[in-house]
Amino acid sequence: MENKEDSAVIFIGDKPVMNYVLAVMTQFNKPITSVTLKARGRSISRAVDAAEITRNRFMQNLKVASITIGTEAIPNEDGKTVNVSSMEIVLAKQ
Amino acid sequence: MENKEDSAVIFIGDKPVMNYVLAVMTQFNKPITSVTLKARGRSISRAVDAAEITRNRFMQNLKVASITIGTEAIPNEDGKTVNVSSMEIVLAKQ
Repeated sequence: MENKEDSAVIFIGDKPVMNYVLAVMTQFNKPITSVTLKARGRSISRAVDAAEITRNRFMQNLKVASITIGTEAIPNEDGKTVNVSSMEIVLAKQ
Repeated sequence: MENKEDSAVIFIGDKPVMNYVLAVMTQFNKPITSVTLKARGRSISRAVDAAEITRNRFMQNLKVASITIGTEAIPNEDGKTVNVSSMEIVLAKQ
């Protein structure tokens, strides 16, 4: 018997935005109810792009279930930590 | 008699993030209850930075009241329109 996952997480990096749009759509082809886009720093605007393009152009039945922002302490090469902004966008089927 | 404004709007552009942090704090020195940060495209991550730095470092009594994302059609030089992602972050006193 197969496990049905309830949600999926996609980490937004610096690939072209359409890669992430495709990843969102691929996840929603599975029996899940929501997909979470996670991004840090400069990638945050790309996460918004991916969510908006997916909703407006490909899956009009998606809604933005929640958006949260935060700060993460990331260790850098010198062993120090730098604070980086983070964002999570949860997309769900209506 | 002076008009008390209930909220203020700050448009996030490509200046250094601390300019916007200072702008948020300046607005909250007036008798207002909320400040809205508006950003488009690449500036979206800077808006998140400004909100997070203001909350974590300077005004711990602020909360994120709401975050919304959208798409705006912007006319470019050729007379065509391009779609650009937008975000609004509403900061409010707790």
